[in-house]
Amino acid sequence: MDDVDPVRAANGAFYRAHEERDLDAMAEVWHRSERAVCVHPGWPVLRGWDQIAESWRRIFAGPGRNQFLLTGESFDVGADRAWVTVEENLVDGDRMVAVSALNVFALVPDRWAMVAHHASPIVPMLDR
Amino acid sequence: MDDVDPVRAANGAFYRAHEERDLDAMAEVWHRSERAVCVHPGWPVLRGWDQIAESWRRIFAGPGRNQFLLTGESFDVGADRAWVTVEENLVDGDRMVAVSALNVFALVPDRWAMVAHHASPIVPMLDR
Repeated sequence: MDDVDPVRAANGAFYRAHEERDLDAMAEVWHRSERAVCVHPGWPVLRGWDQIAESWRRIFAGPGRNQFLLTGESFDVGADRAWVTVEENLVDGDRMVAVSALNVFALVPDRWAMVAHHASPIVPMLDR
Repeated sequence: MDDVDPVRAANGAFYRAHEERDLDAMAEVWHRSERAVCVHPGWPVLRGWDQIAESWRRIFAGPGRNQFLLTGESFDVGADRAWVTVEENLVDGDRMVAVSALNVFALVPDRWAMVAHHASPIVPMLDR
């Protein structure tokens, strides 16, 4: 149960749901419980799936960061929890925004569910 | 092995080492390996204990944030990995700085060792 591939797939599904602005797919990624925690860059801490879902609704309704270039992915997979670090390089119109993220997943019976996402800017804005 | 107390103790030791500017105590808290990852507010991602130790040397040598008021601690403890979220309210001279942190611990034979610390400002500066 220390196989990285299922965690890599779960982490990939998170970024795919974000890129595609797909709230249903995003809901599939998360552990939809009070235990989930999410910190978007510059946002207050969100606790529980209800707050987190609302944040994605607002993000998906807003103007767009539509494409990620993920770099520096690292995985550490335990028996029933796993964590991932990754640099999210967001293509936002004609700008690149570099964000560092720490994602935590919990093994629920049939899948690795995201329980925490903490993202913060590395460089606030970098014009290309 | 889902007892919160040892993880709470490990997380507390991290903040105590920080407050006391004690590099030896900080080294005891961490998993001193290439696997460790640390993101201080506004810093680039640090990977591996060597980089992380150097960051603490610089932080401990610098002017001081010496006192934390920790609020909103939450714990999720798995078989061999655990994660903690906490708001770090730093008393920095006459200012309060609110920081959100996500800490990850791995169970190594005899202790819960910190493998990831990701901290970012909630509110950049809040004068009291």
